[in-house]
Amino acid sequence: MMMLSNTLNNPSFWLDDHPHEECGITAIFAPGEDVARMTFFSLFALQHRGQEAAGIAVSDGFSIRMHKDIGLVSQVFTPENLAPLSGNFAIGHNRYSTTGSSSIRNAQPFLLETRHGPVAVAHNGNLVNSKELRQELLESGVGLSSSSDTEIIAQMLAGAAGEDTFERLKDAMLRWIGAYSLVILTLKEAFVARDPWGFHPLSVGLLPSGGHAAASESGALHTLGCVGIREVKPGEIIALSNHALRVEQALQPKNPTALCTFENIYFSRPDSFWDGRSVHQIRKNLGTALAKTAPVDADVVIPVPDSSIPAAIGYSQASGIPYDEGFVKNRYIGRTFIEPTDTLRKQGVALKFNVIDEKICNQRVIVIDDSLVRGNTIAPLIQLLRDAGAREVHLRITCPPISYPCFMGVDMGTCGELIAHSHTVDEIREQIGADSLVFLPLNKMMSAIGKDDGYCNACFTGCYPFTVPGHGIKMGFENCINDIHGIGR
Amino acid sequence: MMMLSNTLNNPSFWLDDHPHEECGITAIFAPGEDVARMTFFSLFALQHRGQEAAGIAVSDGFSIRMHKDIGLVSQVFTPENLAPLSGNFAIGHNRYSTTGSSSIRNAQPFLLETRHGPVAVAHNGNLVNSKELRQELLESGVGLSSSSDTEIIAQMLAGAAGEDTFERLKDAMLRWIGAYSLVILTLKEAFVARDPWGFHPLSVGLLPSGGHAAASESGALHTLGCVGIREVKPGEIIALSNHALRVEQALQPKNPTALCTFENIYFSRPDSFWDGRSVHQIRKNLGTALAKTAPVDADVVIPVPDSSIPAAIGYSQASGIPYDEGFVKNRYIGRTFIEPTDTLRKQGVALKFNVIDEKICNQRVIVIDDSLVRGNTIAPLIQLLRDAGAREVHLRITCPPISYPCFMGVDMGTCGELIAHSHTVDEIREQIGADSLVFLPLNKMMSAIGKDDGYCNACFTGCYPFTVPGHGIKMGFENCINDIHGIGR
Amino acid sequence: MMMLSNTLNNPSFWLDDHPHEECGITAIFAPGEDVARMTFFSLFALQHRGQEAAGIAVSDGFSIRMHKDIGLVSQVFTPENLAPLSGNFAIGHNRYSTTGSSSIRNAQPFLLETRHGPVAVAHNGNLVNSKELRQELLESGVGLSSSSDTEIIAQMLAGAAGEDTFERLKDAMLRWIGAYSLVILTLKEAFVARDPWGFHPLSVGLLPSGGHAAASESGALHTLGCVGIREVKPGEIIALSNHALRVEQALQPKNPTALCTFENIYFSRPDSFWDGRSVHQIRKNLGTALAKTAPVDADVVIPVPDSSIPAAIGYSQASGIPYDEGFVKNRYIGRTFIEPTDTLRKQGVALKFNVIDEKICNQRVIVIDDSLVRGNTIAPLIQLLRDAGAREVHLRITCPPISYPCFMGVDMGTCGELIAHSHTVDEIREQIGADSLVFLPLNKMMSAIGKDDGYCNACFTGCYPFTVPGHGIKMGFENCINDIHGIGR
Amino acid sequence: MMMLSNTLNNPSFWLDDHPHEECGITAIFAPGEDVARMTFFSLFALQHRGQEAAGIAVSDGFSIRMHKDIGLVSQVFTPENLAPLSGNFAIGHNRYSTTGSSSIRNAQPFLLETRHGPVAVAHNGNLVNSKELRQELLESGVGLSSSSDTEIIAQMLAGAAGEDTFERLKDAMLRWIGAYSLVILTLKEAFVARDPWGFHPLSVGLLPSGGHAAASESGALHTLGCVGIREVKPGEIIALSNHALRVEQALQPKNPTALCTFENIYFSRPDSFWDGRSVHQIRKNLGTALAKTAPVDADVVIPVPDSSIPAAIGYSQASGIPYDEGFVKNRYIGRTFIEPTDTLRKQGVALKFNVIDEKICNQRVIVIDDSLVRGNTIAPLIQLLRDAGAREVHLRITCPPISYPCFMGVDMGTCGELIAHSHTVDEIREQIGADSLVFLPLNKMMSAIGKDDGYCNACFTGCYPFTVPGHGIKMGFENCINDIHGIGR
Repeated sequence: MMMLSNTLNNPSFWLDDHPHEECGITAIFAPGEDVARMTFFSLFALQHRGQEAAGIAVSDGFSIRMHKDIGLVSQVFTPENLAPLSGNFAIGHNRYSTTGSSSIRNAQPFLLETRHGPVAVAHNGNLVNSKELRQELLESGVGLSSSSDTEIIAQMLAGAAGEDTFERLKDAMLRWIGAYSLVILTLKEAFVARDPWGFHPLSVGLLPSGGHAAASESGALHTLGCVGIREVKPGEIIALSNHALRVEQALQPKNPTALCTFENIYFSRPDSFWDGRSVHQIRKNLGTALAKTAPVDADVVIPVPDSSIPAAIGYSQASGIPYDEGFVKNRYIGRTFIEPTDTLRKQGVALKFNVIDEKICNQRVIVIDDSLVRGNTIAPLIQLLRDAGAREVHLRITCPPISYPCFMGVDMGTCGELIAHSHTVDEIREQIGADSLVFLPLNKMMSAIGKDDGYCNACFTGCYPFTVPGHGIKMGFENCINDIHGIGR
Repeated sequence: MMMLSNTLNNPSFWLDDHPHEECGITAIFAPGEDVARMTFFSLFALQHRGQEAAGIAVSDGFSIRMHKDIGLVSQVFTPENLAPLSGNFAIGHNRYSTTGSSSIRNAQPFLLETRHGPVAVAHNGNLVNSKELRQELLESGVGLSSSSDTEIIAQMLAGAAGEDTFERLKDAMLRWIGAYSLVILTLKEAFVARDPWGFHPLSVGLLPSGGHAAASESGALHTLGCVGIREVKPGEIIALSNHALRVEQALQPKNPTALCTFENIYFSRPDSFWDGRSVHQIRKNLGTALAKTAPVDADVVIPVPDSSIPAAIGYSQASGIPYDEGFVKNRYIGRTFIEPTDTLRKQGVALKFNVIDEKICNQRVIVIDDSLVRGNTIAPLIQLLRDAGAREVHLRITCPPISYPCFMGVDMGTCGELIAHSHTVDEIREQIGADSLVFLPLNKMMSAIGKDDGYCNACFTGCYPFTVPGHGIKMGFENCINDIHGIGR
Repeated sequence: MMMLSNTLNNPSFWLDDHPHEECGITAIFAPGEDVARMTFFSLFALQHRGQEAAGIAVSDGFSIRMHKDIGLVSQVFTPENLAPLSGNFAIGHNRYSTTGSSSIRNAQPFLLETRHGPVAVAHNGNLVNSKELRQELLESGVGLSSSSDTEIIAQMLAGAAGEDTFERLKDAMLRWIGAYSLVILTLKEAFVARDPWGFHPLSVGLLPSGGHAAASESGALHTLGCVGIREVKPGEIIALSNHALRVEQALQPKNPTALCTFENIYFSRPDSFWDGRSVHQIRKNLGTALAKTAPVDADVVIPVPDSSIPAAIGYSQASGIPYDEGFVKNRYIGRTFIEPTDTLRKQGVALKFNVIDEKICNQRVIVIDDSLVRGNTIAPLIQLLRDAGAREVHLRITCPPISYPCFMGVDMGTCGELIAHSHTVDEIREQIGADSLVFLPLNKMMSAIGKDDGYCNACFTGCYPFTVPGHGIKMGFENCINDIHGIGR
Repeated sequence: MMMLSNTLNNPSFWLDDHPHEECGITAIFAPGEDVARMTFFSLFALQHRGQEAAGIAVSDGFSIRMHKDIGLVSQVFTPENLAPLSGNFAIGHNRYSTTGSSSIRNAQPFLLETRHGPVAVAHNGNLVNSKELRQELLESGVGLSSSSDTEIIAQMLAGAAGEDTFERLKDAMLRWIGAYSLVILTLKEAFVARDPWGFHPLSVGLLPSGGHAAASESGALHTLGCVGIREVKPGEIIALSNHALRVEQALQPKNPTALCTFENIYFSRPDSFWDGRSVHQIRKNLGTALAKTAPVDADVVIPVPDSSIPAAIGYSQASGIPYDEGFVKNRYIGRTFIEPTDTLRKQGVALKFNVIDEKICNQRVIVIDDSLVRGNTIAPLIQLLRDAGAREVHLRITCPPISYPCFMGVDMGTCGELIAHSHTVDEIREQIGADSLVFLPLNKMMSAIGKDDGYCNACFTGCYPFTVPGHGIKMGFENCINDIHGIGR
């Protein structure tokens, strides 16, 4: 509890006004190689998807050994604890915590002994029917040791009836509603699977050594030197094992699919691909679209580093207004529980960002930010620019206002926390102190992405790809859900 | 020993081919405020100047209390260990380790009880006559508990004869040859002082609450909300105390002074000022100068993030060749002792940087880097670009080749380690695999900085501002020093 | 693995030649009191029963909160992590590790969410049919996350069909063969239960505040200030809740019961009662019996501290030979992985015990030890006495030779490790270097205990109270089990 | 500060009512052996003399390497941090903290570089003129980094003028008033020295490998397998080096000497010798003397474990009243900051000791304790006996009442804390609830020890062996010192 309230008061927390991904996952099959170390490097490249806990499970064909703990990948693993993790197959997981409860109980992979042998599961996503599935498992007499839906997935595989893991996984997928990119480890195989909506990314590639690797993002496969990288299709299961990949379209992809737009906007590394397109290029396109949609006469275009840099470059190139750095970001921001006193805060103690004053003084500044969630970060940033002498501050956002929570594994915050849920754009503009504020409209965002549909934009529109059962996942949501139904129609 | 060899083999180490600053320092006088917390935030903003150890000493007028330990500022300090550090005066220190021996013995501040009362000292720099001073102290019967020249400074203050700290410090400064930016804490005052050559930066400013603060960089004073920021002059002592600042030109500034050029090139935060000029602007100027000096027909200009970004923007604007991101830097690189096996490395496992392939494929690329020290980082980076399909790679460096070691507190490496000490530019170009390589010549670098003299460029020229006694500080230097004398003439 | 081999080579390990108890357990019901703290003190008093891990689970009627970790009770718990454990009911557990694998996965209590609500279980003992029960659970589709039979117990309670916890526990007990003293926590009750053989101890008492407490040993209840202490009967379940204890004879006690003799010999605190008798007094009786059975002319009687002290006092009083201290035991022996080199060991470096030379020099010494398991401790101790000048060393053991392993939760070692499994008494005497060696015969031991039957003496006789299924629990046991059957007849 | 008050409230603290030794020291010369490991084992055997911090310094002839930290010996040292400490000479130190401030700054050895080369010093004792010596050093211009008088000793050796370490040490000893048993390490030698009063013990012995070892107690030398053990004489310096021991009577022993009686009463291991006599035997003699001095009709004699066991055996043998165990001591008492609430305490929660009820119920009990300092432990113990049904409780103490503080390095507490400073024996008896209370008179204590004089009994008599300068070491002492002079006459 003390932990929780510290976190909420923590300036390094409230200064990061972004939705939060829940996880990064990876799987490796590389006979004769140091698979644990390769898994480590893949997780290292996926660290931005989750910083709370990390874990690796490895099979040598006879048993599965696992190490997981709370902390960054580089803190959790040492040469000493990696050494015993020898084998041919491995899976790994980075966890982001939604609740402030940093418990080892919820760290992944989740490893169970089953009648089919040991099974380890790591999961990126959220099952919206987990409550029902959980209840079914409990009613069937299974006891559950965590609140994680990854345990539900693992126990369902333990209880499933099919002939082999492939069949059991296929059967279980029929029951799962929601977002799941999965890596699964048994004694003799590693599996990757993606829900039929295709919410979250997952790619596979060929390792230089001849084996295969899978990871949430193609950027991590790049880091491993992979070639022949392709995305796992929605509804697809792929088994990594001794011979060629075994690929099966377990479930037909939903029509339309529901890929998460936010992978483009913020989550993915810029060197990753999402839905066959370069994330970096899409972000530049978003900037270009903003320049066309919301031009303004100004002296300089600056990004809120780091995710908005490509969009700011794109805006600059399309508008002809010079690009420059305006904010300096402290690279050493980490988990500190020391916060400025109120007095210090009022005196302007700026922990995470400083302004390069002479770039800003007496200038008309266009600030590009990727998204606006709670709105608590951008206001102090704009104030920093004002203090540095900015004449005008025009804020441009590369996506529409976020007005609805996400139920597919992204921590957007509750309706009550989302500034756009209850404020008009003009109210927001006034509240954050900008001279002008433009959000990129949905259709222009999708044009910049290069697709008309197939994406989940529920956080902008409230139109979820399916009815969300239970409705009560987050406090205060009950009132919100009515709005959603109103709007969703 | 294991530590050391691990470090040398550590990819996150050899991929950081930069000179290393030894320290960041700060001093606060803020009666009625939480000075320890303010010192913490100042050190936080100076973290880039040293990541090995951190310390804070605070005086409440009756005693000095201190906490220091190995680790990042955010790791060393907690609300619990900051709480007892109450008082009106404080000094703080971030340490960078040159030797790989991470010992708490060398952490600063250095606190001594003396006949004049308790004295705490924190130091950025290096006394080139420390060996003689050390010997004198030992001969006088003083025992020394560390190899740090900060202890020498503190013991000299303990033994000095003057009437007050001001006088004693002035007397001692007469004996010190080399680089020293100092913060000194006694029961009733805090002092800041800078050597008469002015090697390293140090600024003071007025706190919003009415007190004063000093810090290695103006960017840290910004973070504290300071106004009226000015640099401490070479040879100047300033006492922070109850009334107005007491300022005295203790020693006449050397003519010429010897300000460290590398603060512009690499060390300082871009939002800091150095010698009255904006570091960010100077870096843009360096890029502009490079574009004029070494133009090349190409499709895109990319920086090696983060320090080269302004120069790449400058190069782009001057040349009209579009600026873009080409490398993605892993923000979570920290102290990991897990390294790729040779096999993995040969397979291209890229730990710190990935390339955004589609920006690079089939392109003629200009890469801007701030400096080239050992040359071991840039070669793999260029290879990454080649692997991504770059047609041409043109490397432009914002300073001349570094051919000589530094004796003023910057870890450049030994002559044997400096690639430019024994290789021509063309040999270097071939070795790193670039299509062309141009270093910004000294005179154009100085023009971009906006000064003709007053700077120490010894690492480029071998012309040191004074004869360096002892000559044997680093292994292999004996041979090198002959070269230096040859060249220096 | 390194851990394991270190442990085996660890002198503080091989110098402790005792059977090892697996656990201490406790349960508290104390509305309005700080039950977590009371549980802590009870575990503190039971620390001798297990030093590897400790855990406490507390219910406030709405949820169960738990903290457990590897380490001593005093290391695992702090005021900070105890504070959130508020409620009216609690259970606690100290774990002893049999395998050298100090895994948090096997720490207890084991907490599951079930269809009947949350259930936490802590267990002292061993189910000999755990393999079959485990297989049944797996076949029913349950996945298991540890190798602990406590998880089996918890999952069986999760899947059991009865109307309330009492009924479900009763049903499950019908299936369990082996040793189990249990404490079980639900939202509204705490339960204690003991197997119908009564292998391991468990007592309940009335707290000064009006609630109830249970603990493995009456000594721990003493520490809590309990009165009205009585043992839980074999086959009995007792519910601790708002009103009077609810007591039920769930299973009829076996006839004969099979109480563990070793609680008298070694395990229990001397201030505890076992089967209604004072452990301290029984140990004195064992010494008296030894004096009568195996008299020898000598100058002094000394114990191997601490567990043999009462028996040595008893021997002295019965024989008239003066009692004295002969060994000094290092009280700070803990987990050190620093061991003497072979050279140092040969030179006589004595880590755990020293001899008080002048007590021993030129004396005929009777040494009383409680038991002899591997025989690797007593040989160096006798050598220490010889080095100190003892003229004669007569070893007297307060129980018969241990020749067979235990399957009821006590770590005796395998047949191959038990010195008496393959050596005659005279061979042992020669091997350890004693002038004479007498084990107290079984019938005299039982007389001293004051009972003819009702005790499990399988480790002495090989006559187990039931057929042990599976037979292969420990390596090398297959050969041994034939012997057992031969002897058992 | 929080630490301090926690400690004072800590039941494991107030239940240990003993004077506290400040240190254990050791020195090893063993060419070709693992001297660091040998030093570790010696410190392990001396752990009872100080549990706050531990350190080892080793010389290989070229440099001195050191590791020290806060914690028990087994916590401070690991195979990893011992490994680099290779060499032929070593010294080690266990520290007891008098003040509650567990600072690494005060851990020993204290290592200085001096004009004579590196010098490491470890110290058991207290210089009563340290304030003057400290002032002299400060006045001479030396800065001091700690409040430890060990640093004073080291800096005096750094500044001393003599030809070699032997001479410099001899000169310095002339200036030191008070208690000091020292081990000193230089590059090529290890020295041991003892003050001319001989306050604290120090012995040397011949190692099996041919080298020499020194330690505070002969028991530790025993542990190392030493033979030819003898005490370092008061005023003697011994150099351990390549050839035979170099022994010199640096200062004439005082006449009379002032050996600390409390080494016999409580501090030393029972297997150690002090002043040529067995500590265990002396403690038995003290019990015998008590039996003769203060006989009482009773049923059983019990010790307060562990230090009073030999005296209780002696009392029993002299009186014919049976010896038995009455208290069970929790062997796992360590540093826990979890304390019983007042409610729990009132309910009788007994953390450290339990009573074996049936030994006590309805009995007339003689309790033997070694000493009575604050009297806060014995009262609850007597209450435990009463609660267990003791008919009578007769307390016998093996020394006179402690009425005066110690200035020679033993933490007795201040006058105000010493129960006997302001209460008569009968008042104490009433306060602690005993039926009778007898302290062994000074002359009978000395008879049991076997000496008439040569011992410091200042804590009993107030007659210090010299005038204590400064008088104000502990708060409230000013008033006390008048009493002392009154009584001392």
